[in-house]
Amino acid sequence: MSAEVEEMLKRFQNFKNIVGIMVIDNDGIPIKTTMEYNLTLHYAAVMQTLREKAQQVVLDLDATNEFTFLRLRTLRHEVLLCPEVDYFIVVLQLPCD
Amino acid sequence: MSAEVEEMLKRFQNFKNIVGIMVIDNDGIPIKTTMEYNLTLHYAAVMQTLREKAQQVVLDLDATNEFTFLRLRTLRHEVLLCPEVDYFIVVLQLPCD
Repeated sequence: MSAEVEEMLKRFQNFKNIVGIMVIDNDGIPIKTTMEYNLTLHYAAVMQTLREKAQQVVLDLDATNEFTFLRLRTLRHEVLLCPEVDYFIVVLQLPCD
Repeated sequence: MSAEVEEMLKRFQNFKNIVGIMVIDNDGIPIKTTMEYNLTLHYAAVMQTLREKAQQVVLDLDATNEFTFLRLRTLRHEVLLCPEVDYFIVVLQLPCD
Protein backbone atom coordinates (compact mmCIF):
# COMPACT_ATOMS: atom_id res chain seq x y z
CA MET A 1 0.00 0.00 0.00
CA SER A 2 1.46 3.33 -1.05
CA ALA A 3 2.50 6.15 1.27
CA GLU A 4 -0.17 8.20 -0.49
CA VAL A 5 -2.89 5.87 0.84
CA GLU A 6 -1.39 5.93 4.35
CA GLU A 7 -1.47 9.72 4.20
CA MET A 8 -5.09 9.69 2.98
CA LEU A 9 -6.11 7.35 5.81
CA LYS A 10 -4.55 9.68 8.39
CA ARG A 11 -6.31 12.64 6.84
CA PHE A 12 -9.69 10.86 6.68
CA GLN A 13 -9.51 9.82 10.34
CA ASN A 14 -9.73 13.47 11.34
CA PHE A 15 -13.02 14.05 9.52
CA LYS A 16 -15.66 14.19 12.22
CA ASN A 17 -18.39 12.37 10.26
CA ILE A 18 -16.17 9.36 9.44
CA VAL A 19 -16.99 6.27 11.50
CA GLY A 20 -14.43 3.88 10.05
CA ILE A 21 -11.94 3.25 7.27
CA MET A 22 -10.98 -0.19 6.00
CA VAL A 23 -8.44 -1.24 3.38
CA ILE A 24 -9.24 -4.69 2.02
CA ASP A 25 -7.19 -6.79 -0.39
CA ASN A 26 -8.65 -8.50 -3.45
CA ASP A 27 -9.15 -11.74 -1.51
CA GLY A 28 -11.38 -9.92 0.98
CA ILE A 29 -8.70 -9.84 3.72
CA PRO A 30 -8.48 -6.57 5.73
CA ILE A 31 -5.05 -4.94 5.40
CA LYS A 32 -5.82 -1.96 7.60
CA THR A 33 -8.83 -0.89 9.61
CA THR A 34 -9.88 1.69 12.16
CA MET A 35 -12.89 -0.44 13.13
CA GLU A 36 -13.40 -3.50 15.33
CA TYR A 37 -11.86 -6.50 13.52
CA ASN A 38 -14.92 -8.78 13.33
CA LEU A 39 -17.05 -5.94 12.00
CA THR A 40 -14.31 -5.22 9.46
CA LEU A 41 -14.40 -8.87 8.34
CA HIS A 42 -18.15 -8.59 7.83
CA TYR A 43 -17.80 -5.39 5.81
CA ALA A 44 -14.89 -6.89 3.85
CA ALA A 45 -16.95 -9.91 2.81
CA VAL A 46 -20.08 -8.03 1.71
CA MET A 47 -18.34 -5.02 0.18
CA GLN A 48 -16.17 -7.40 -1.84
CA THR A 49 -19.36 -8.80 -3.44
CA LEU A 50 -20.64 -5.25 -4.10
CA ARG A 51 -17.32 -4.29 -5.66
CA GLU A 52 -17.50 -7.30 -7.99
CA LYS A 53 -21.11 -6.54 -8.94
CA ALA A 54 -20.34 -2.87 -9.65
CA GLN A 55 -17.36 -3.85 -11.79
CA GLN A 56 -19.49 -6.39 -13.67
CA VAL A 57 -22.30 -3.86 -14.27
CA VAL A 58 -19.91 -1.23 -15.63
CA LEU A 59 -18.18 -3.67 -17.99
CA ASP A 60 -21.50 -5.18 -19.09
CA LEU A 61 -22.69 -1.72 -20.18
CA ASP A 62 -19.39 -0.79 -21.86
CA ALA A 63 -16.42 -3.17 -21.95
CA THR A 64 -14.01 -0.22 -22.42
CA ASN A 65 -15.22 1.62 -19.32
CA GLU A 66 -13.92 1.28 -15.75
CA PHE A 67 -15.56 1.40 -12.31
CA THR A 68 -13.80 4.07 -10.23
CA PHE A 69 -15.95 4.87 -7.19
CA LEU A 70 -19.19 3.92 -5.47
CA ARG A 71 -21.22 5.72 -2.82
CA LEU A 72 -23.97 3.76 -1.11
CA ARG A 73 -26.35 5.72 1.00
CA THR A 74 -28.53 4.11 3.64
CA LEU A 75 -30.89 5.35 6.34
CA ARG A 76 -28.10 5.20 8.94
CA HIS A 77 -24.88 6.01 7.12
CA GLU A 78 -23.01 6.22 3.84
CA VAL A 79 -20.50 3.68 2.60
CA LEU A 80 -17.86 4.80 0.13
CA LEU A 81 -16.03 2.19 -1.91
CA CYS A 82 -12.88 3.09 -3.79
CA PRO A 83 -11.40 0.28 -5.91
CA GLU A 84 -7.65 0.19 -6.48
CA VAL A 85 -5.61 -2.43 -8.38
CA ASP A 86 -4.58 -4.67 -5.47
CA TYR A 87 -7.07 -3.64 -2.82
CA PHE A 88 -10.13 -1.46 -2.16
CA ILE A 89 -10.90 1.17 0.42
CA VAL A 90 -14.19 1.30 2.30
CA VAL A 91 -15.14 4.39 4.27
CA LEU A 92 -18.14 4.36 6.58
CA GLN A 93 -19.49 7.80 7.40
CA LEU A 94 -22.49 9.51 8.85
CA PRO A 95 -24.60 11.33 6.25
CA CYS A 96 -23.58 14.97 5.83
CA ASP A 97 -27.14 16.31 5.96
CA MET B 1 -45.76 7.12 -10.64
CA SER B 2 -46.41 10.25 -8.64
CA ALA B 3 -46.69 13.78 -10.01
CA GLU B 4 -43.70 14.57 -7.84
CA VAL B 5 -41.55 12.16 -9.86
CA GLU B 6 -42.85 13.58 -13.16
CA GLU B 7 -41.89 17.03 -11.93
CA MET B 8 -38.44 15.80 -10.89
CA LEU B 9 -37.88 14.22 -14.31
CA LYS B 10 -38.75 17.48 -16.06
CA ARG B 11 -36.41 19.38 -13.77
CA PHE B 12 -33.55 16.91 -14.25
CA GLN B 13 -33.82 17.02 -18.03
CA ASN B 14 -32.69 20.63 -17.97
CA PHE B 15 -29.45 19.88 -16.16
CA LYS B 16 -26.75 20.16 -18.80
CA ASN B 17 -24.59 17.27 -17.52
CA ILE B 18 -27.49 14.76 -17.51
CA VAL B 19 -27.34 12.28 -20.38
CA GLY B 20 -30.44 10.26 -19.60
CA ILE B 21 -33.11 9.45 -17.05
CA MET B 22 -34.88 6.12 -16.77
CA VAL B 23 -37.69 4.98 -14.49
CA ILE B 24 -37.77 1.19 -14.20
CA ASP B 25 -40.33 -0.97 -12.43
CA ASN B 26 -39.43 -3.78 -10.04
CA ASP B 27 -39.65 -6.34 -12.85
CA GLY B 28 -36.96 -4.45 -14.77
CA ILE B 29 -39.44 -2.96 -17.28
CA PRO B 30 -38.81 0.69 -18.27
CA ILE B 31 -41.78 2.93 -17.36
CA LYS B 32 -40.25 6.14 -18.64
CA THR B 33 -37.00 7.00 -20.37
CA THR B 34 -35.30 9.90 -22.09
CA MET B 35 -32.85 7.48 -23.74
CA GLU B 36 -32.97 5.16 -26.73
CA TYR B 37 -35.23 2.21 -25.82
CA ASN B 38 -32.80 -0.68 -26.40
CA LEU B 39 -30.11 1.07 -24.37
CA THR B 40 -32.70 1.66 -21.64
CA LEU B 41 -33.51 -2.08 -21.63
CA HIS B 42 -29.83 -2.85 -21.20
CA TYR B 43 -29.49 -0.38 -18.31
CA ALA B 44 -32.73 -1.65 -16.77
CA ALA B 45 -31.48 -5.24 -16.71
CA VAL B 46 -28.05 -4.55 -15.24
CA MET B 47 -29.08 -1.79 -12.84
CA GLN B 48 -31.82 -4.07 -11.51
CA THR B 49 -29.11 -6.56 -10.48
CA LEU B 50 -27.05 -3.77 -8.90
CA ARG B 51 -30.10 -2.54 -6.99
CA GLU B 52 -30.72 -6.04 -5.65
CA LYS B 53 -27.07 -6.46 -4.65
CA ALA B 54 -26.98 -3.07 -2.88
CA GLN B 55 -30.18 -3.91 -1.00
CA GLN B 56 -28.77 -7.31 -0.01
CA VAL B 57 -25.46 -5.78 1.20
CA VAL B 58 -27.21 -3.16 3.33
CA LEU B 59 -29.54 -5.72 4.96
CA ASP B 60 -26.71 -8.20 5.47
CA LEU B 61 -24.78 -5.58 7.45
CA ASP B 62 -27.82 -4.43 9.43
CA ALA B 63 -31.27 -5.95 8.95
CA THR B 64 -32.94 -2.80 10.32
CA ASN B 65 -31.23 -0.49 7.84
CA GLU B 66 -32.43 0.53 4.37
CA PHE B 67 -30.71 1.24 1.05
CA THR B 68 -31.70 4.74 -0.11
CA PHE B 69 -29.33 5.86 -2.87
CA LEU B 70 -26.36 4.71 -4.90
CA ARG B 71 -23.86 6.65 -6.99
CA LEU B 72 -21.59 4.68 -9.28
CA ARG B 73 -18.73 6.55 -10.82
CA THR B 74 -16.91 5.30 -13.89
CA LEU B 75 -14.23 6.69 -16.21
CA ARG B 76 -16.89 7.94 -18.65
CA HIS B 77 -19.88 8.92 -16.55
CA GLU B 78 -21.77 8.62 -13.28
CA VAL B 79 -24.84 6.49 -12.74
CA LEU B 80 -27.23 7.44 -9.95
CA LEU B 81 -29.71 4.86 -8.68
CA CYS B 82 -32.61 5.91 -6.51
CA PRO B 83 -34.79 3.03 -5.25
CA GLU B 84 -38.49 3.65 -4.60
CA VAL B 85 -41.13 1.17 -3.46
CA ASP B 86 -42.55 0.17 -6.85
CA TYR B 87 -39.79 1.31 -9.19
CA PHE B 88 -36.30 2.77 -9.29
CA ILE B 89 -34.85 5.78 -11.03
CA VAL B 90 -31.55 5.68 -12.91
CA VAL B 91 -29.83 8.90 -13.94
CA LEU B 92 -26.85 8.83 -16.26
CA GLN B 93 -24.70 11.94 -16.11
CA LEU B 94 -21.31 13.25 -17.11
CA PRO B 95 -18.96 13.71 -14.17
CA CYS B 96 -19.11 17.20 -12.68
CA ASP B 97 -15.35 17.67 -12.56
